[in-house]
Amino acid sequence: MSDVFAGVLARGGVAAQVSGRAWLQALLDFEAALARAQARAGTISDGEALAIAAACDAHLYDADAIGAGAAEIGNPAGAVVNALKAKVDAPVHLGATSQDAMDTAAMLVTKRALVPLLDDLRGAADAAATLAETHRDRPIIGRTLLQQANPTTFGLKAAGWMTGLDEAAAGLERVRLASQMGGPVGTLEPLDLRLGLETPTLPWHTLRGRIGELAGALGVAAGAAGKAALDVVLLSQTEVAEVRERTGGGSTSMPHKHNPVAAVSALGCAKQAPGLVATLLAAMVQEHERAAGAWHSEWRPLTNLLTATGSAANWLRTSLETLEVDAERMNVEGDTGAAALLVDRALEHR
Amino acid sequence: MSDVFAGVLARGGVAAQVSGRAWLQALLDFEAALARAQARAGTISDGEALAIAAACDAHLYDADAIGAGAAEIGNPAGAVVNALKAKVDAPVHLGATSQDAMDTAAMLVTKRALVPLLDDLRGAADAAATLAETHRDRPIIGRTLLQQANPTTFGLKAAGWMTGLDEAAAGLERVRLASQMGGPVGTLEPLDLRLGLETPTLPWHTLRGRIGELAGALGVAAGAAGKAALDVVLLSQTEVAEVRERTGGGSTSMPHKHNPVAAVSALGCAKQAPGLVATLLAAMVQEHERAAGAWHSEWRPLTNLLTATGSAANWLRTSLETLEVDAERMNVEGDTGAAALLVDRALEHR
Amino acid sequence: MSDVFAGVLARGGVAAQVSGRAWLQALLDFEAALARAQARAGTISDGEALAIAAACDAHLYDADAIGAGAAEIGNPAGAVVNALKAKVDAPVHLGATSQDAMDTAAMLVTKRALVPLLDDLRGAADAAATLAETHRDRPIIGRTLLQQANPTTFGLKAAGWMTGLDEAAAGLERVRLASQMGGPVGTLEPLDLRLGLETPTLPWHTLRGRIGELAGALGVAAGAAGKAALDVVLLSQTEVAEVRERTGGGSTSMPHKHNPVAAVSALGCAKQAPGLVATLLAAMVQEHERAAGAWHSEWRPLTNLLTATGSAANWLRTSLETLEVDAERMNVEGDTGAAALLVDRALEHR
Amino acid sequence: MSDVFAGVLARGGVAAQVSGRAWLQALLDFEAALARAQARAGTISDGEALAIAAACDAHLYDADAIGAGAAEIGNPAGAVVNALKAKVDAPVHLGATSQDAMDTAAMLVTKRALVPLLDDLRGAADAAATLAETHRDRPIIGRTLLQQANPTTFGLKAAGWMTGLDEAAAGLERVRLASQMGGPVGTLEPLDLRLGLETPTLPWHTLRGRIGELAGALGVAAGAAGKAALDVVLLSQTEVAEVRERTGGGSTSMPHKHNPVAAVSALGCAKQAPGLVATLLAAMVQEHERAAGAWHSEWRPLTNLLTATGSAANWLRTSLETLEVDAERMNVEGDTGAAALLVDRALEHR
Repeated sequence: MSDVFAGVLARGGVAAQVSGRAWLQALLDFEAALARAQARAGTISDGEALAIAAACDAHLYDADAIGAGAAEIGNPAGAVVNALKAKVDAPVHLGATSQDAMDTAAMLVTKRALVPLLDDLRGAADAAATLAETHRDRPIIGRTLLQQANPTTFGLKAAGWMTGLDEAAAGLERVRLASQMGGPVGTLEPLDLRLGLETPTLPWHTLRGRIGELAGALGVAAGAAGKAALDVVLLSQTEVAEVRERTGGGSTSMPHKHNPVAAVSALGCAKQAPGLVATLLAAMVQEHERAAGAWHSEWRPLTNLLTATGSAANWLRTSLETLEVDAERMNVEGDTGAAALLVDRALEHR
Repeated sequence: MSDVFAGVLARGGVAAQVSGRAWLQALLDFEAALARAQARAGTISDGEALAIAAACDAHLYDADAIGAGAAEIGNPAGAVVNALKAKVDAPVHLGATSQDAMDTAAMLVTKRALVPLLDDLRGAADAAATLAETHRDRPIIGRTLLQQANPTTFGLKAAGWMTGLDEAAAGLERVRLASQMGGPVGTLEPLDLRLGLETPTLPWHTLRGRIGELAGALGVAAGAAGKAALDVVLLSQTEVAEVRERTGGGSTSMPHKHNPVAAVSALGCAKQAPGLVATLLAAMVQEHERAAGAWHSEWRPLTNLLTATGSAANWLRTSLETLEVDAERMNVEGDTGAAALLVDRALEHR
Repeated sequence: MSDVFAGVLARGGVAAQVSGRAWLQALLDFEAALARAQARAGTISDGEALAIAAACDAHLYDADAIGAGAAEIGNPAGAVVNALKAKVDAPVHLGATSQDAMDTAAMLVTKRALVPLLDDLRGAADAAATLAETHRDRPIIGRTLLQQANPTTFGLKAAGWMTGLDEAAAGLERVRLASQMGGPVGTLEPLDLRLGLETPTLPWHTLRGRIGELAGALGVAAGAAGKAALDVVLLSQTEVAEVRERTGGGSTSMPHKHNPVAAVSALGCAKQAPGLVATLLAAMVQEHERAAGAWHSEWRPLTNLLTATGSAANWLRTSLETLEVDAERMNVEGDTGAAALLVDRALEHR
Repeated sequence: MSDVFAGVLARGGVAAQVSGRAWLQALLDFEAALARAQARAGTISDGEALAIAAACDAHLYDADAIGAGAAEIGNPAGAVVNALKAKVDAPVHLGATSQDAMDTAAMLVTKRALVPLLDDLRGAADAAATLAETHRDRPIIGRTLLQQANPTTFGLKAAGWMTGLDEAAAGLERVRLASQMGGPVGTLEPLDLRLGLETPTLPWHTLRGRIGELAGALGVAAGAAGKAALDVVLLSQTEVAEVRERTGGGSTSMPHKHNPVAAVSALGCAKQAPGLVATLLAAMVQEHERAAGAWHSEWRPLTNLLTATGSAANWLRTSLETLEVDAERMNVEGDTGAAALLVDRALEHR
């Protein structure tokens, strides 16, 4: 299952956090956390919990076999439990339903993927901030409907990118990632699984607001990255040439070209987000106590949305960190004092 | 331009707040607010501001003519300014660009539409809360993958609807609605237009995080409404018949039928949301200082997303407020104490 | 219900064919056609059919009242039948279910909307063909990843637009528009309603392939229009300025600007299509003999998708028909013979 | 890069045809075909073509390294060419641009994936046809808006599934899969690469109608599969229990349950399609001679759309092939003769 697109579409640290192995580890982390919680509650012994936890290491299992086994009940949690039970003679998965494991794993995978994703989003924002500061009063023509309009400064353009990225990061930080341990039909009082996830008021097996909010916030982050990337691509046009990626790529057929590969790839990644968000929002309409299909339709889009957004952020960061500004080409006459003041305002509000 | 679907798809108070006339009034409100702000700043006289404000009443204008005139510059703001200038001899629209008017109007329209929308969303949540309280320990079979599983209570089911709707409403309240007054290329310091909207740090002509967040929050609200509606539809099945809408509708061909029209219509409205959210998120990728197309692609989807979500909330409210519970059919044996305690927990957290 | 966006977003002849009144007429056309078919079959008398047909004129009814009445059974067909029955003492709607009327009306509305839509699509293709012929060997630099690459001809660029538009039109012509007359649960042998629609093999109340194919074909048409519009917008950039819309629009704040309003608006319309297609495809998953919500979620997106695609085609036609080419700015050295031969090839294949 | 969801979400034969290795082989197949075509044209020698073709075996290369190398120019074609050149001393990729390789590979991957996909779609249709024939006059209650309405036959229900699946398969067979060999800016006369793909009139580097049509047809196929799957899920409800998957799955927490895992999984796969279609349609808006991002945004969604649709078809086939009908529970009184005649009609039209 190699990925020939990895270098372009699975860029940065997110891919490793949403891989099959990462999902498997998260499923095992749920089982270990559950065992520990039950030991704390006295339902199982400390020794049993330790034995279970010791067996909850993804390297001990064949992820492909788990994947194949997922067909049996329609999700991989059952196969994980069976594999675990084969290794350890202790009451595994006690009281839990497969969706408890899957939902908690989805949140753990997300939590872990958000670390590199937010790092790249903030890294890109920092690079934009540096550009904003450095080019605070660098005049550049403002363009509306792609026509030259009135002057602004390149610093303000970059401050806009920064603001968009900062706000998107803030939105992602507000997302409510919660564990799940509601039992077969979601009637158990949610347990603190001590996995760094919120303990929800109610089991949320079919209350998917969390997934929907997460999807929306990721879509916004992809959009903010896409906006900056598009500007870079347009400013890099041969006829404009006001910026240039230092590490720009070549071409198999035209060695004279200097393509803004990072910004182009960022755009290519960001454009995959809206459709995936739509899938996740449509999947919120889940029936009764466990959904027959809508739930299953979340796993892949969530994984891919994290990957696409993370890759967009990482590529954009590369683009902005290596962006060379051609001050001479940018130069335009006119008063840019107001624009410069806005740069200050944006940097102060950071 | 009558709407033969209005009764189903433009239900509740939102439609009136997003109509052509409402948009026109919001565009005029921008011009009046701008004039007032300029009078405060001494740029125009108080008399001029008063004259402009007096002319800013949508009933004075032919909205269809404005609509036709929108073709000239590609948005209706120019036609509004021209019509206003024909009525009042004062410096209208001073310093503003058409997008300032359009974006502020979009936010005003949204702010006004959110009033009935949130009222219905909360009304539906209240109805769910009442059901949760009333049926706290009413046993009902829990269903997973649409198979009967273990018992829960109808109160917990309703508490789930309530929680989903409450959280969706909270998400909508967090949305950052801001005015826009950045001038031709967005270099002006944002002005407090005193329209009950946030004053942004920077002009956001092409920083569309606000629209993206709003879209996501509306998508979540539609999803939360859709979830409850789907449950009602499924519980209303002839073979299940555990609930029944008191006001259920008939059929042109089968008078014996009792259709859960409100829940069905809520679902029909909610299902329109995800695609519209995708359009708005895709539109975040806007170039330079004013986008050539992506901006234009927001107006209709935003209007329709508010309408669809508002209609879903209103229909759901009707459904839940008129829901009759057949306790006898619901009855199932088994311990439902844990479920009842969760109902208490959810109601306390409200 | 005026539309302040009409001039931009409801451009060309489609809007009139998908209006509330047009839907109402289509619903009435179904009732008239059904009555005639029943008279042919001897189920009702010729006089009754004539009386019904005479009453099937939308101008005789209050579309707003019909719209409000749609709330009763969750679609406007019932309200239409009631209004018709109030006017004519004859067996109206005999044997039909409301979805028979709605689905046939949807197909009629589509058939009628496709006339101006295809006319504009083909008109735009014709304009592109003229440009291709006129500028067959006009050298222009080819641009890949928005970097200048190798020479091509403007004629080949235009031939590409033409081909994309022609193929999209062909796709729309292949769409299978069928009438619907299956009765309450779709068990009646489909009747030829003589409305210029295909008679289906089976009633298709919940077999929505037709809607899905139509949606896909409209999405492709919008995409083909968007591609050409984007090229025009980019070629119109101040820094490129190789083409210019003769009728280009101004700006409320910058009178010196010459915006490619037609191409920009075409893009703004085209970008609304993909999300609407997704909604219609998601709505294909319809349960049993009549769907509780998915069906209802089709009407508005279908109407809006026809409008958006039709407006995109109309705007693009305007853009291409008024496009001025600046041969001097386009000029680039290099061999363009191969490109010119491709133009011939494309024109021959037309 | 193992996939813990494979058993559910990458079901059937499609996954192997769209894997990283399959893409790599398709990229190599392009290079081999190009070399052969050039040898036929006398541009390179037969020996060179043979040497190149011999090296075009994916097993000779490290797909992960190719994937990583894709970052350099923003797509894997360059890395493939470099790896190939390292193995064989002959003029590789002559005259081609990386998009020629990528687009042809995308079409090859699709062509190969459609074999198992269509086989499963037709297999599911065949299973539906058998059910239709067997249960031609088996009475079952028709359900509209999920309420019991009038009788129909289970055979007609199955005939509807069959028709929807057959039409979807026919739609996929109409899709125009073409090779690509247009050179750097698409000015070369398309070459017949003898790969079983259509030779296009023009290079289609930025004319993406083919991708759009393919996306639409896949979306329709997913929708047709989803419709049948939803019916099975609903008919399998404990309260209805008119059908039952023989191979139905269990539950980690409730061993007494008999879940319709195949139909549930089919639904879970089908629901992922519409969002991916939207992404591919949005990506049709590609600028100039090679798109900066929109093109890149196609690869993953296309791969995933093929996988999701193929998995849905495969699961549905399993579901329908193992469907047990409970004639006693289905039984309902009333005339079902018309329904039975429709079954005949549908089977005859096959």
